[in-house]
Amino acid sequence: MTDIHWNTQITKIAPNEIRLRGYRIDDLMGELSFTAAIYLALLGELPSPEATMLMDAMMVASIDHGASPPSALAARTAASTGASLNSAVAAGLLSINRLHGGAIEDCMRMLIEGLRRLNQGSKSIEQIADQLVTDMTAAGQRIPGIGHRIHKNDPRTAKLFSLAQDADLDGDAVRLLAQIQSTLAQKGKSLPINVDGAIAALLVDLNFPPELANAFFFMARVPGLVAHVHEEQTRERPMRRIHPTDHGYDGPEDRSLDT
Amino acid sequence: MTDIHWNTQITKIAPNEIRLRGYRIDDLMGELSFTAAIYLALLGELPSPEATMLMDAMMVASIDHGASPPSALAARTAASTGASLNSAVAAGLLSINRLHGGAIEDCMRMLIEGLRRLNQGSKSIEQIADQLVTDMTAAGQRIPGIGHRIHKNDPRTAKLFSLAQDADLDGDAVRLLAQIQSTLAQKGKSLPINVDGAIAALLVDLNFPPELANAFFFMARVPGLVAHVHEEQTRERPMRRIHPTDHGYDGPEDRSLDT
Amino acid sequence: MTDIHWNTQITKIAPNEIRLRGYRIDDLMGELSFTAAIYLALLGELPSPEATMLMDAMMVASIDHGASPPSALAARTAASTGASLNSAVAAGLLSINRLHGGAIEDCMRMLIEGLRRLNQGSKSIEQIADQLVTDMTAAGQRIPGIGHRIHKNDPRTAKLFSLAQDADLDGDAVRLLAQIQSTLAQKGKSLPINVDGAIAALLVDLNFPPELANAFFFMARVPGLVAHVHEEQTRERPMRRIHPTDHGYDGPEDRSLDT
Amino acid sequence: MTDIHWNTQITKIAPNEIRLRGYRIDDLMGELSFTAAIYLALLGELPSPEATMLMDAMMVASIDHGASPPSALAARTAASTGASLNSAVAAGLLSINRLHGGAIEDCMRMLIEGLRRLNQGSKSIEQIADQLVTDMTAAGQRIPGIGHRIHKNDPRTAKLFSLAQDADLDGDAVRLLAQIQSTLAQKGKSLPINVDGAIAALLVDLNFPPELANAFFFMARVPGLVAHVHEEQTRERPMRRIHPTDHGYDGPEDRSLDT
Repeated sequence: MTDIHWNTQITKIAPNEIRLRGYRIDDLMGELSFTAAIYLALLGELPSPEATMLMDAMMVASIDHGASPPSALAARTAASTGASLNSAVAAGLLSINRLHGGAIEDCMRMLIEGLRRLNQGSKSIEQIADQLVTDMTAAGQRIPGIGHRIHKNDPRTAKLFSLAQDADLDGDAVRLLAQIQSTLAQKGKSLPINVDGAIAALLVDLNFPPELANAFFFMARVPGLVAHVHEEQTRERPMRRIHPTDHGYDGPEDRSLDT
Repeated sequence: MTDIHWNTQITKIAPNEIRLRGYRIDDLMGELSFTAAIYLALLGELPSPEATMLMDAMMVASIDHGASPPSALAARTAASTGASLNSAVAAGLLSINRLHGGAIEDCMRMLIEGLRRLNQGSKSIEQIADQLVTDMTAAGQRIPGIGHRIHKNDPRTAKLFSLAQDADLDGDAVRLLAQIQSTLAQKGKSLPINVDGAIAALLVDLNFPPELANAFFFMARVPGLVAHVHEEQTRERPMRRIHPTDHGYDGPEDRSLDT
Repeated sequence: MTDIHWNTQITKIAPNEIRLRGYRIDDLMGELSFTAAIYLALLGELPSPEATMLMDAMMVASIDHGASPPSALAARTAASTGASLNSAVAAGLLSINRLHGGAIEDCMRMLIEGLRRLNQGSKSIEQIADQLVTDMTAAGQRIPGIGHRIHKNDPRTAKLFSLAQDADLDGDAVRLLAQIQSTLAQKGKSLPINVDGAIAALLVDLNFPPELANAFFFMARVPGLVAHVHEEQTRERPMRRIHPTDHGYDGPEDRSLDT
Repeated sequence: MTDIHWNTQITKIAPNEIRLRGYRIDDLMGELSFTAAIYLALLGELPSPEATMLMDAMMVASIDHGASPPSALAARTAASTGASLNSAVAAGLLSINRLHGGAIEDCMRMLIEGLRRLNQGSKSIEQIADQLVTDMTAAGQRIPGIGHRIHKNDPRTAKLFSLAQDADLDGDAVRLLAQIQSTLAQKGKSLPINVDGAIAALLVDLNFPPELANAFFFMARVPGLVAHVHEEQTRERPMRRIHPTDHGYDGPEDRSLDT
C-alpha cells in the first residue's frame, strides 16, 4: 500500500467476482434491466419496479431528437472528417452543456429550492410558486422547464406525467412544477411544461441529485449519437457540408406498436 | 431546399410528434425499456422480448469494472483537474479503443468470417474452428474473446451463455466460439471464453453489425464512467495523484437480491 | 443569403486569397513567427517584436512539465488503449481546467481588479496589495500565482521577469504582483511568485484578456502532449498501468546551448 | 521504485530545474522561438535557424482557414451549447482526422516511398514519379497534395517553396512532388500542388516523421480554433443554428505589413 492508496465505493473486483454496489454482477444479469443497473450504479440502491419503469420512459423520451440538436451536428461533423465512432460521439458529448439539456438541472434546482421552502411549513405551494416566479422574473431569468421552440404540446410530457401518476410516483416536485406553470399562465404567460421540466420534476421525486441531471440526459442521448454517427459513416460522403436545419426524414413510414 | 439538403432515417420531428424509426416516441414510452429503444435506434426494428433480456444482461455485465480500466482512470484524471461531468466522461470515452473493449469487435469479425465459411456448406464446424485457430496462430495473432488477466472463470460468461440458452438465443456464433475454445484446449492452450467473447458471440447471433461493437461496449460503460467521475468530484481532493492499481473498495458489503 | 447568415472577423477566404485579420497570410509567412501569428489571430493586431519575444518565452516555459501533470497522464492513458494521436491529445486537453493551469486566469483577474483600483488614483500600490491579500485571506482563498509544490525558486519565473525588464515590458501588473508577494512575506508567508503568476502578470501587461488565459496555457502545452502521446505510442506496450509519479528520465544528458 | 516504474525521454523535472531534451528550459527562454521549442520537443534536437523559419512559415500558413472547415464548425457548435473553451477546442480537435488535414500524411508517405525507391539508385526521378502516378491511378487512389476545391493557385504554396528555396531547404521531396505534378499534367490532369502537398514535401525534407503530420497540422490550427470559439462565445447568441457555408467576413479591411 503506497501513500496514494485510495478507495472506491462503486465496484469491487476480485478474481471471478465482480460486485456492483455490493451485488454480484452475474446475479444482477437476467434480473435487472440496464436502466435499473444505471440507477444502482449512480445512487447505490436498487430502484423499485415503478421507478425503473419511469426511468426507462424518461430515457426512451430522451434517446434522440433528430438531426438538429448541436450534439448530433457536432458528432456528425467529426465523423465526416474520418473520426472513429467513439471520438465522434465524444465530440457530440462535448456539445451537451448548460444550454443543451441543461434546463433539466436548472429546473431541478428550482424545484428543490421550492420544496425546501415548502417543508419549512409556513407557506402554501401556491405562495411558493408565486414567490419563485416573481423572484426569477425580477432577476430577468427564464423559468426552466417551461416552453419549447418546436413542441407546443409535447406528447412526451403528457405521457411522462400519466405514467408517473399510474405508478403513484408523481410527488411534490410534480405538483410544484404544475403550480409554477399555472401561476405563469395566470400572469399571462401560458406556456406548456416541456419534456425537460417533466423529467426534472420526476427526477427530483425519485431523489436523483441535480448535479447528475446532465449525466441523465447524455446517458440517454449517447445511443442516439451512435445512430447518427453510424448513419453519417455509412450513408454520407466524407467532408460534406452539414446543413443544421435543411434536412428531412426518409426512414420507415409511420407505424405503431399494435400492428 | 438548398443544394445541401440531406436526410436521416433515424428520427422524424414534427410539431408535437417525434417518431423513432417510425414509432411515436410517446407510444414507446412505458412500453419499451431503454435497452429495447437502443436496439430500435441502432438496428431500426424492435427486438423480441428475449433479445431485449439478453441485451440487458450484456449491458449490465459491462456497466463497470472498477477503477482500473483506462477509461475510468482517464475520466477521473480529467475530473480531478476540474473538468465538467460531460468533459470528464468524454476523456474516458476517448480511452475506449481497439485495445480496451476492442476484443468484442475482433471476436465478432472472426466469428462472422467463420460462419461465412460454415454457410458454404463443405466444412464442419470443427474443421472451421481448427482452420481459424491455425491461421491466426500462424499469423502470430491472439484469438480474441479467449483468456482474461484477472478472471479465470468469469461468472459473467457463464451467466450470459445460460441466459441465452434459456431464451433459445444461443446460435451458430456461440457454437463456433465454444468450438474454437475447445480446439485451443486440445492444442494445449486451455483458456476460458471471456466476457468479451461471450458478448461478441451473442451480438453476432442477434445480427448486430461488428462496426457497432465498440459502441455497444461504451454505451454500457458510460454510466459506470459517470459514477466514477461523480465519486471523484464528491469524494477526492482535486489534482490528487491517481494510482492505477493501488486502490481498494470500501462500498456496501456483500449483499444479494434475495434479502 | 439565408436567415441564418453570419459573419466572422477572423479570416477572409476568397479564391487564391486568405487574409488573417486583414493581412494576406502569404505576406505574413516568412515575416511573422508562429507566436506572432497567434497574437494576431487572437487579439486582432500585430505584436511588437518585444511582445513576440516575451510571448515566445512564456510559451517555451509552458511547453512541457514532464510526465506528472494530469494532462500528460490522461493523454498517455487514452493513447495506451489505441486512441489516435488527435483523440489522445484531446483527452489531455480535457484535463486542462481551472485546477491545472487555471491559476493563470485567477491571478490575471486578481491583478486586473487591483489595477482597476489603482487607476482610481486614491490608493497606493502597497495599500491595494494589502487590501487584496487581506480580503482573499479573510475569504479563505489562496493567493493565485504564489507558491509551487515542486519549485521553491522557479527558474522560469526569474527568467521571464528579467526578459520583460530588458524589453521594458514589465508594467503595473508585474509591480502589483511583486508587491502582493512582498506583502504576503511581511505577513509571515514568504513564498515565491510561481510561473503561473509571472505569466499572468505579463499577459495582463500585454493586454491579453483573462478569459483566454487557459487557452494561452493549452496552446503552449499541446506540443508537449503530442510528444508524450508519440512517446507512449512508440515506446510503451499497450494497456500498461501508468504510474502517476514513479517515473524517471532517461533522455539526453544535460547539455547547453553554448556547446 | 515499483514494478510499474517507467521512463520518459522528453523532460526532466527536478526542484528548480526543468530540462527539455537536456536543455534547461530557462536557458531556452529568450533564445528559442516557440516553434523551435516544438521542433526540439518532438524531434529531440534543435532546428537550424532556416528550419525554424520554414516551420514558422508552415505553421502560420495553417493557423486558420476561416469558418468553413469542420474543425471550426464543430468547435463553434460545442461552444454554442455552453462548453468551456478547452472542451470546445477539443471538439474541434476531434474533427481533424484523415479527411481534414490528413492529406499531409498521405503525401508524406507517398514521397517517402518515392525517395526510398530513388535511393536504390536504378531509376530516375521522372521514372519514379511516373510509376507512383500510374500505380495510384490504377488503384483508384487520388494523388495526395495535388488540387484544391477553392484555391487553384494557392498563394501559400508558392510562398512556401520560395522561402524553402531561399533557405536552401528544398530537397529531394520537393523535387519529387514537383515531378509528380508535372507527370500528372502530361497525362492531362493539370492541377496545382496544394498547401498540404507543399507542407508534406518540406516536412519530409526536414526529416519530420509522417506519423506526426496530423499533429503538425493541429498544433498549428489550435490557435485558430481558440479564435473561433472565443468569437462564438463573445459575439453569437447561444444555441444558434450555425450555417456551414453561408457566412461572410466583416473583420478588418485589407491591409499590409508595409503600412
